Amino acid sequence: MPEHDAILFIAASETDSNLFYACRFLAGDPFVYTQIGDEKILLMSDLELGRARDESKVDTVLSYSRYEGLAKNAGVTTPQATDVLHVLFQEQGVKRLLVPTSFGIAHGDRLRDLGYEIKCKPEPFIEERVVKSDEEIAHITESQRQTERAVQKAIDAIREAKPRKDFLYINGEVLTAEKLKHILNVSLMEAGCVARHTIVAPGAQGADPHNQGTGPIRPNESIVMDVFPQSSHTRYWADMTRTVVRGKASDRLKAMYEAVHAAQEVCFSRLKAGANGAELHTEVQKTLSDAGFLTEERNGKMVGYFHGTGHGLGLDIHEPPRIGKGGKDLPENTVVTVEPGLYYPEHGAVRIEDLVVVTADGYRSLTEFPKYLEI
Amino acid sequence: MPEHDAILFIAASETDSNLFYACRFLAGDPFVYTQIGDEKILLMSDLELGRARDESKVDTVLSYSRYEGLAKNAGVTTPQATDVLHVLFQEQGVKRLLVPTSFGIAHGDRLRDLGYEIKCKPEPFIEERVVKSDEEIAHITESQRQTERAVQKAIDAIREAKPRKDFLYINGEVLTAEKLKHILNVSLMEAGCVARHTIVAPGAQGADPHNQGTGPIRPNESIVMDVFPQSSHTRYWADMTRTVVRGKASDRLKAMYEAVHAAQEVCFSRLKAGANGAELHTEVQKTLSDAGFLTEERNGKMVGYFHGTGHGLGLDIHEPPRIGKGGKDLPENTVVTVEPGLYYPEHGAVRIEDLVVVTADGYRSLTEFPKYLEI
Repeated sequence: MPEHDAILFIAASETDSNLFYACRFLAGDPFVYTQIGDEKILLMSDLELGRARDESKVDTVLSYSRYEGLAKNAGVTTPQATDVLHVLFQEQGVKRLLVPTSFGIAHGDRLRDLGYEIKCKPEPFIEERVVKSDEEIAHITESQRQTERAVQKAIDAIREAKPRKDFLYINGEVLTAEKLKHILNVSLMEAGCVARHTIVAPGAQGADPHNQGTGPIRPNESIVMDVFPQSSHTRYWADMTRTVVRGKASDRLKAMYEAVHAAQEVCFSRLKAGANGAELHTEVQKTLSDAGFLTEERNGKMVGYFHGTGHGLGLDIHEPPRIGKGGKDLPENTVVTVEPGLYYPEHGAVRIEDLVVVTADGYRSLTEFPKYLEI
Repeated sequence: MPEHDAILFIAASETDSNLFYACRFLAGDPFVYTQIGDEKILLMSDLELGRARDESKVDTVLSYSRYEGLAKNAGVTTPQATDVLHVLFQEQGVKRLLVPTSFGIAHGDRLRDLGYEIKCKPEPFIEERVVKSDEEIAHITESQRQTERAVQKAIDAIREAKPRKDFLYINGEVLTAEKLKHILNVSLMEAGCVARHTIVAPGAQGADPHNQGTGPIRPNESIVMDVFPQSSHTRYWADMTRTVVRGKASDRLKAMYEAVHAAQEVCFSRLKAGANGAELHTEVQKTLSDAGFLTEERNGKMVGYFHGTGHGLGLDIHEPPRIGKGGKDLPENTVVTVEPGLYYPEHGAVRIEDLVVVTADGYRSLTEFPKYLEI
């Protein structure tokens, strides 16, 4: 006997990937999904009723308007989603609900007032989402190939640019982070992939790992390019980071690159189904600190290595499992990034990120793009 | 005396626009924002600490790690965000929290267990967001201009395409919904705007208002193009729909177009600050039904006019106020769409959507694009 009668989502599947995974129906506005026993049910507005019947992968699509009418008949003047659900749940004898941790507190309070027992399940709410099917891996790989094509175009532009004094010039204009992001994002959109927060961070900017980067690209400084688009068609993401220098890298920057590369290899060498995400991360941290790279706060900012080593990826850009603090054992056929980095504003930044499938005895890389620093 | 000691968000500002509006810091992963009295505070991970200090518009950026350490010192082995917050709230004497309705139930339950009183505030959580500043209107207008440039390119392609038997041909290939969406989305990305669910729905497909459209475009049938991108730079959206026919529209489709256009004009003629969103919608419905267009369910799908007349737009594509069921009085300087439509699979679909600012004595259109059916 399960401890609940029904699973419940009231959310927009555009932003809630568990909901999208469960019903395979995409909508930008919140809607109601419930699974009662084995029956998957959508309760859809008039606007989405037809499309939900055509596109969703559920057993039953019910009309929200019809149940709203029943709620009004039962005496509720302006029924909310919870009142409308109450009619359905009463019909079906549902009393105990299982919801994700993100379930809205207002709906939760209202359902509790109506007498429902609500239990939250932490992520992964849908455990099978962590393990990717061949089809899902194919979708992720396709997004990854488009990412690599785009990054190649950006690198071609950096290589083609000519250093003159402090800046790089291409077609008579200063090469900027904005221009490179434009090349990356437009190239990806041409391939049906949406890249929203592409990072092209030159020099000290790259030392803030999420700084998206602005302004001129200079010769002889690090350029961190972190590109992570979602396919509009399949909704699966990809993720890759490369760090390059146009010209000559300083010895310090070269040492940082070597250390990050080595740390990534350490992670790869230990990666396999059953390996522990937290332990892998500790190994990566140790490799970098053993190589002499300190992690600490300086002037209110962190330097060194201060983010996780990797994250699961699929319908979300960040999803379980984690290779980082609190990370659990990795299952076979999960897809994760491996992305150590080093960040020191005075020297620049290095991050190298590949995407891999975890296998029974190791891993299979989904990333084909080569690694090099100077171009 | 306010009824709460602090406002609290634990969310990702990428998807929670109230949070973005409050702190102007953009992140894809959840973070903690609280306003205690007048002081706006971010509690940021090491990864985002530097960027938050540089980019956010808050009074104080605190280190999550530091408070996590304090929670551990207080005996919590693996502190959750709520435990970390508890340290801060105890420091500051906070006991009563105001949260949005979307606040996650798991965090809410935990905070209640820790003794906090939690009150939800329904949308609009931040009331001033409904009223747009001149700067916000300028951002929306800029997104709208890019939308119009993109739609012009799509219409140019439709016009350029040559009918041959059942299809339209361009550069020797069948013109499809996919090609038109590609033109629209790439054109918008070139301008730094992200369009994700662009609709180009030919013929009967358009009769499902959210069907994004696939396959060949045929001569003499309706083509509904609904384009709504978000600027990557400002994060403000735009929204426009035009319906065209390449060739000759049937008399029935022409009548639908005239009725929808007239219904839009009826809404415009009554639109001004203080007008009621629900009443405006009823007027639009009445105009369409008086013109003989029935709204009803046929074979499990709705036909006629079965969506709202308009929605607020800003940092979200759909936000208060609504011109539709349950709509309230419209304030001055709010930005809304006005988008009546008619949907009959056997005849096709018509939707016409403009974006306007509500003024004291009427409205000012942000849409410059002309309206015509046949091209």
